[in-house]
Amino acid sequence: MAPQPKYLSGDQSAIDEFINKFDIFLFDCDGVLWSGDHLFPGTVETLELLRSKGKKIVFVTNNSTKSRADYQKKLSSMGIPSEIDEIFASAYSSAIYISRIMKLPAPKNKVYVIGEAGIETELRSEGVEFVGGTDPAFRRDITPEDYTKMADGSMLDENVGIVLAGLDFHINYLKLSIGYQYLARGAKFLATNTDSTLPSNHTFFPGAGSISIPLINMTGQHPIALGKPSQAMMDSIEGKFQFDRKAACMIGDRLDTDIRFGLEGKLGGTLAVLTGVSKKAEWEVEGAKVVPAYYVDKLSDLKG
Amino acid sequence: MAPQPKYLSGDQSAIDEFINKFDIFLFDCDGVLWSGDHLFPGTVETLELLRSKGKKIVFVTNNSTKSRADYQKKLSSMGIPSEIDEIFASAYSSAIYISRIMKLPAPKNKVYVIGEAGIETELRSEGVEFVGGTDPAFRRDITPEDYTKMADGSMLDENVGIVLAGLDFHINYLKLSIGYQYLARGAKFLATNTDSTLPSNHTFFPGAGSISIPLINMTGQHPIALGKPSQAMMDSIEGKFQFDRKAACMIGDRLDTDIRFGLEGKLGGTLAVLTGVSKKAEWEVEGAKVVPAYYVDKLSDLKG
Repeated sequence: MAPQPKYLSGDQSAIDEFINKFDIFLFDCDGVLWSGDHLFPGTVETLELLRSKGKKIVFVTNNSTKSRADYQKKLSSMGIPSEIDEIFASAYSSAIYISRIMKLPAPKNKVYVIGEAGIETELRSEGVEFVGGTDPAFRRDITPEDYTKMADGSMLDENVGIVLAGLDFHINYLKLSIGYQYLARGAKFLATNTDSTLPSNHTFFPGAGSISIPLINMTGQHPIALGKPSQAMMDSIEGKFQFDRKAACMIGDRLDTDIRFGLEGKLGGTLAVLTGVSKKAEWEVEGAKVVPAYYVDKLSDLKG
Repeated sequence: MAPQPKYLSGDQSAIDEFINKFDIFLFDCDGVLWSGDHLFPGTVETLELLRSKGKKIVFVTNNSTKSRADYQKKLSSMGIPSEIDEIFASAYSSAIYISRIMKLPAPKNKVYVIGEAGIETELRSEGVEFVGGTDPAFRRDITPEDYTKMADGSMLDENVGIVLAGLDFHINYLKLSIGYQYLARGAKFLATNTDSTLPSNHTFFPGAGSISIPLINMTGQHPIALGKPSQAMMDSIEGKFQFDRKAACMIGDRLDTDIRFGLEGKLGGTLAVLTGVSKKAEWEVEGAKVVPAYYVDKLSDLKG
């Protein structure tokens, strides 16, 4: 069996050692801080304790429909105080990646967006030009004229060099067709994240990964994903916060996204909390590939 | 190298032998009879020749948006006379499969349709009940209320036992969400066909397979496909026409769909025509897996 994680709940000296070891904590949110609309007791106090010890906190979410400002409102509505600079969502991650890492030469650096307003806000904040997104001109049925104008390119923007697909509650045949045309003409393919489902109301709805997958199916190309567990997101976070990875710890409830994200990013630590998706049994089996360094029953166990 | 196909063009005795060997010819259409809007010269005469020799002709198409009647109009508009009973499209294939092969016990045998009117027409012709499809109630944005009503099941039809996904020019987030809910509740998963793209105007648009793939991505389930090269379609054709497979020949332009369909169906023969997608070089390489039994440069070479 793989080396097993250290269990921290109820062990104050181990908790102190754990907290002292790191300067920055990356937090997954749903399943860690809250579940659905239910804030876990002690969440706010635990975050306060870490802040009082001078720790940097970053909320890392794959949610691609919200800008950082939107997400701060969500945290606020859950009763969690935060700074906008503590928030790292996949829409922002994508904008950062495009503007600071890809840096395509103008003018062929426009982005065709499949997604909601949060992506647009973050692209604007980085000065990235885009088409598509929430533009009503793209929220309609395809017409016979569209086929001709896509085929001859006359309805396409020749400066689009990137297709960015996120969660789009207004996905339609026209948007997918246009996305395909840009990719077929050589645009780079990015996805805010590739989660196949979106958990809500104790069931699942299509996630961002189920919006981009028709384009993968049509082109055979796979997008660079800017959400957990993709390391492109870790690179974006590091680019922004400039921290020592050895002094960073990822905290999350999902082994396949959060813990994997921290392990592959070679962070100093990973902490699993058992208030979400993954269960202890998943790392206690022979051949388990993703094993956190630490685990607690619930986040508030850290405040002792 | 695999045994190579017999080349018939210009070899009258080989052509006569070929035609005499079969009683029924299954025809792919686009790339064989016509390309786009252009009817190949000699198509009508070749079909007449076969009919005059008492051969049965079946037009086999993966087009899922058209009923047989719609497709007959298309053939007619291309100048090709046909009988409705000579037409086998994937919408009809799906209806036949549901009504004559699956035969789910009532009342849990309703179909949730993602697709266009052709599917509805064919389901009605087989007396199969359905919801979804072109119903305007499903052609709208998702609302906050929908999430609740999907989660508690109150907006779902409890008698839906099958999800059938075909090409849908009105695909949206609501339809995909509902499709997921039915599958998660145990409905059987069918697809009219799984072509990733739809060729049109010398480029590509999303095909039926790019409509069903978000559901595959969300559920991990793969649908039974009712179009070429799926043998479920061959079973449907055989169920309807009752022929000896050894006396049947599949004629098509695509190795990966048409010729494979005939080979896996163990038909007596397969004929590739070089007026469409696949080229001779594809079966002339070492390790070629799909090799037709015969080929011609163009269909009309059969009329000598």
